[in-house]
Amino acid sequence: MIIDVHTHFVPESLPAMAGRLGGDRWPVTKCACGQAKHKHVMISGENFRTITDQCWSPKRRIKDMDDENVGIQVLSPMPELLSYWFNAEDTLEFSRQINFQLSEFIKASPDRFWGLGMVPLQDPEMAAKEIKRLKYDFGLLGVEVGTNINGRSIGDPFFDPFFAEVEAEGISVFIHALHPLGNDRIVGPNFLSALIGFPTENALAVSSLITGGVLEKFPNLKIFVSHGGGTISTMLPRLNNGWEMMEDFKKICPQPPIEYAKKIFYDTLVYDVHTLNYLMDLVGPSQLMIGSDYPFVIREKFPGHWLDALNINQELKDNIKSHNAIKFFGKFS
Amino acid sequence: MIIDVHTHFVPESLPAMAGRLGGDRWPVTKCACGQAKHKHVMISGENFRTITDQCWSPKRRIKDMDDENVGIQVLSPMPELLSYWFNAEDTLEFSRQINFQLSEFIKASPDRFWGLGMVPLQDPEMAAKEIKRLKYDFGLLGVEVGTNINGRSIGDPFFDPFFAEVEAEGISVFIHALHPLGNDRIVGPNFLSALIGFPTENALAVSSLITGGVLEKFPNLKIFVSHGGGTISTMLPRLNNGWEMMEDFKKICPQPPIEYAKKIFYDTLVYDVHTLNYLMDLVGPSQLMIGSDYPFVIREKFPGHWLDALNINQELKDNIKSHNAIKFFGKFS
Repeated sequence: MIIDVHTHFVPESLPAMAGRLGGDRWPVTKCACGQAKHKHVMISGENFRTITDQCWSPKRRIKDMDDENVGIQVLSPMPELLSYWFNAEDTLEFSRQINFQLSEFIKASPDRFWGLGMVPLQDPEMAAKEIKRLKYDFGLLGVEVGTNINGRSIGDPFFDPFFAEVEAEGISVFIHALHPLGNDRIVGPNFLSALIGFPTENALAVSSLITGGVLEKFPNLKIFVSHGGGTISTMLPRLNNGWEMMEDFKKICPQPPIEYAKKIFYDTLVYDVHTLNYLMDLVGPSQLMIGSDYPFVIREKFPGHWLDALNINQELKDNIKSHNAIKFFGKFS
Repeated sequence: MIIDVHTHFVPESLPAMAGRLGGDRWPVTKCACGQAKHKHVMISGENFRTITDQCWSPKRRIKDMDDENVGIQVLSPMPELLSYWFNAEDTLEFSRQINFQLSEFIKASPDRFWGLGMVPLQDPEMAAKEIKRLKYDFGLLGVEVGTNINGRSIGDPFFDPFFAEVEAEGISVFIHALHPLGNDRIVGPNFLSALIGFPTENALAVSSLITGGVLEKFPNLKIFVSHGGGTISTMLPRLNNGWEMMEDFKKICPQPPIEYAKKIFYDTLVYDVHTLNYLMDLVGPSQLMIGSDYPFVIREKFPGHWLDALNINQELKDNIKSHNAIKFFGKFS
């Protein structure tokens, strides 16, 4: 049974935020005329993405999961819903509505769906205060956050109050690429940003957790990162080499960077079994969990179809398939 | 005999550009008082880097090469000398002086040193015109360029006149990480930029050559990239997957991204044999040449010391050691 830890959720009707600061930048769902079971997510009057009932229908999702041998999906909001760019109080209200809808969704099929919520991380104290509600009221197992919050890397000490609280409550953090930097360095159309910028975002996020000391300050954090950590796996050897050579680096980072990277978990969404073996050799098979990006266009169908090609024994393969996720999310049922 | 294609040169006295636009942003060498054989490279009144006679003394370099089994070094200017941020005419003059000093250096020991020059790439037409002089007057085998020129990726069509001319003249292009983006995403001290930003720069440069169509427009270009292409190797699978799924991507890029990546050469400076094997599996052993970053602090000593640990036969190892470079630079002596 596969546990897919990287799947996204959008409710059929997004919370109405009309009249709030930010105006029509708040996402709304609009009927996709003539296309049954489709909706447009409209942002600033433009169609951000056309989505299907895979986003909100448990029945449809369960059918796809059964077809692709997925036992459990871990749902998190579509990252564009994270809404860090609005007034924090408004984002808090939006978050509660999303978290509520998500919790209703998972409660209806608790044997097939687990959930990760969202918090107004532009205000880390406010985000920290919301963690208990997210855990106890909504029954969510963790929280999805961006690689950056309005351009500030997730490893910035600004977010310490948030990490202190999630560590204290023992819930997990899913770091997902968001609003990538470097679009002005891409030559070509807009959609390349998701292909070039996302892997870079993930690498910058992980390196900020290392060099910003987050993993040193909060040693019991449970963090997993989207897209196999993106390009962090090929950045780490240079970081390690710099650490060996530069005494100033050792002062800010007591352990070699790779040791911190091994404390983080990564989904397997790297699209190539060679690359997955490479990542696994670097961080260890205990740090991998299957992720597909369901239901979006770039998702991996039949997640884990490459399991046989991994350079490890069956027990470790089974761990990647589901046991690592069961341990990570603390589901020892 | 090892050929080390990634080594840098700084003349003992930098060309005097005082009084030009840009003022003391022009780099100058200053005596490092009390430290024999050391100089400070001063930029904007601050010590940019303290360098040793390894930068300018053939005798010292040859001793180090003999100690570390390096037969030939390919020299290119320290990237900060590339000077794209000045008036193009001034950069042209500065370039000619650097290229002249470099050519004198290599002419004195042509069996041990090959050279790559510099051009004012902020003006691609002017840069293109300088290629013949660089090749015929100075006897240089190619040109070093930045991953970006004042924030514009090297794959931008703006640089087409330059690439057309280097292709026509059959000289090589060495793309080196320069002035990395994303410093505001790094949590920690300034020196981390070279560890985190450089690999990212290289990846953005290679992806811009692919998605910008440079390798399609100029199929005979001879390009090699510093630091093993940085993080491009873990970005490529996602680019490829996007290409497979998105018809719009196929319209701008007739072949899969990986096919273009295989036309480029990469130095081996990835600091980890696992990572090198991974890169080699992706682009092929024919695309690798040894590079060390001599003589700077982050350099690899005894370049190629990991050759025995590569997953290939002796013939292919020998190619990486020197034959690939001999072919690449067209030195069939």
